[in-house]
Amino acid sequence: MKKIINNPDNFVNEMLEGILAAHPDQLKSASKDLRSIVRADAPVKDKVGLATGGGSGHLPVFLGYVGKGMLDGCAVGNVFASPSAQQMLEVTKAIDSGKGVLYIYGNYGGDVMNFDMAAEMAEFEDIKVESIVVADDVASAPKGNEKKRRGIAGLFYAYKIAGACADELKSLEDVKKVTEKALAGMRSMGVALSPCTIPSVGKPTFEISDDEMEIGMGIHGEPGINKGKLKTADEIVEILMRNILNDLPYKSGDEVSVLINGLGATPKEELYIAYRKAHAILRESGIKIYHPYIGEFATSMEMAGMSITLMKLDEELKFLLDKPANTPFFVQA
Amino acid sequence: MKKIINNPDNFVNEMLEGILAAHPDQLKSASKDLRSIVRADAPVKDKVGLATGGGSGHLPVFLGYVGKGMLDGCAVGNVFASPSAQQMLEVTKAIDSGKGVLYIYGNYGGDVMNFDMAAEMAEFEDIKVESIVVADDVASAPKGNEKKRRGIAGLFYAYKIAGACADELKSLEDVKKVTEKALAGMRSMGVALSPCTIPSVGKPTFEISDDEMEIGMGIHGEPGINKGKLKTADEIVEILMRNILNDLPYKSGDEVSVLINGLGATPKEELYIAYRKAHAILRESGIKIYHPYIGEFATSMEMAGMSITLMKLDEELKFLLDKPANTPFFVQA
Repeated sequence: MKKIINNPDNFVNEMLEGILAAHPDQLKSASKDLRSIVRADAPVKDKVGLATGGGSGHLPVFLGYVGKGMLDGCAVGNVFASPSAQQMLEVTKAIDSGKGVLYIYGNYGGDVMNFDMAAEMAEFEDIKVESIVVADDVASAPKGNEKKRRGIAGLFYAYKIAGACADELKSLEDVKKVTEKALAGMRSMGVALSPCTIPSVGKPTFEISDDEMEIGMGIHGEPGINKGKLKTADEIVEILMRNILNDLPYKSGDEVSVLINGLGATPKEELYIAYRKAHAILRESGIKIYHPYIGEFATSMEMAGMSITLMKLDEELKFLLDKPANTPFFVQA
Repeated sequence: MKKIINNPDNFVNEMLEGILAAHPDQLKSASKDLRSIVRADAPVKDKVGLATGGGSGHLPVFLGYVGKGMLDGCAVGNVFASPSAQQMLEVTKAIDSGKGVLYIYGNYGGDVMNFDMAAEMAEFEDIKVESIVVADDVASAPKGNEKKRRGIAGLFYAYKIAGACADELKSLEDVKKVTEKALAGMRSMGVALSPCTIPSVGKPTFEISDDEMEIGMGIHGEPGINKGKLKTADEIVEILMRNILNDLPYKSGDEVSVLINGLGATPKEELYIAYRKAHAILRESGIKIYHPYIGEFATSMEMAGMSITLMKLDEELKFLLDKPANTPFFVQA
């Protein structure tokens, strides 16, 4: 295991100490254990509170998007492990301004169970909670079984749209509704070239040969749909785009935002080579690109690989996508 | 070689095509070969033009900082190879508004030679050019030989300060002067844990064992000052910080900005664990942190490792550091 860390058992806490030390104007801890992080100015008056949570090891997901124009708080689990319902409740209490709290998180068993429990606990505290489960990865379950899909980089778009809508001081119902619309038109798929290592485990999450890639692999190393020889960038993007485009399906005349997401170790140069091909495929398909995002938005620590996400847009979603945001890991002017 | 690429010989051009396709509102090419990239609105009226350039493989350095509040143009070389003087001249001509052009680039033989030649060629075109060579890496030459040092992540600060000053419509001399002040108080040092592979070469730039690190290695794999067993994050940061702090030297009462820079494959989680220790060392030393930056600012493609940069601040530099910027790879609101 080759990492810049101290005791592996302290990995998450030391990371959190670093993040809080670096961004005291933007973030604060709502609990002694540092696992419930909220905006420094939480709760924000008259605004629906937006909470997320999940295992560590995916920065900027989840914690990195807590800030102006996006989320209000995040419950932080150990690496690839759900935070507890109690930690989610602490976030909920710290961000509720009386207007209710919307949970937005990825579709993983532990997270679903704990967020459901936290929602029940919040009800006892007279906090109104609604939930949205992000399930954008088309590789993780076939069409017809969309609710079984895992949540991956599409989380970024969900946070961005919900955050911009909440900033307009809309109601909990309105914020939920527009975020659900965004998710309904959103599809993702990824490819992994190398594994990552959970610090406390000390060995890679899976094995893959030096000349292989795995299409559809999840951000915790969940098995994909095809393991084979490494293909060219153009071939990889064609496979991912074909699966994504056919799933919704997206069609000529649609307008989309595209997210090319690096999983951790893949250079930005390669992400732009991938974007070049995605851009060409969309043009050929008569689909208009409105605002592309290229970079690391949801990672698996030092995993090499990438994912592509498309989000179908209408005027309302374009307006919300364009609004400014300012978080420790994402700034849009 | 495990990369998401097509033909290795097309690596740089396809990357540039991707970047231009993604950011047409921000960037344009000033030449047919795409190797002279400038702001979409260049030349900017009444503003000193700021140009940089260098080999590819270091995104966001160099090209990624072309945009509002930072640079006006960039000459783009092959991977780890200097662009030509002619390509630099094309940038110069495209960004000069009549107020002159400042070259800001890293201290590497090929770049120095070509930028000097470009400056002479620009003189024939009646464009006034001044140059600043960034040489922030304390590991690359001892104290007393500062001018022989290589330029690494400190380039980011040089672009930020110069860009903010140029945005105030100051003269070429004024922009140069304040950038030189920033550089005089700036020191960096890095550590590498793994090599990277130049696409057209196909094998790693150097070899390093699974349990080793190299302190002071350059961003092209130039030898460092010590190769040894991988240490803990705290130990690594102590070594880097001790070398940096003693070199200027920085002293109690100083105020600094800190940049924790990932070299490509090192997760953001680890960078924040490193920041935690850097923050503690600075506090113990009585040095105040004004604005930390943590992320990937100057990379070596998929190299694992990090560098630390300190920049000493006064009121003028704080004002310029705080000004907004909006480039494809860096946004500050």
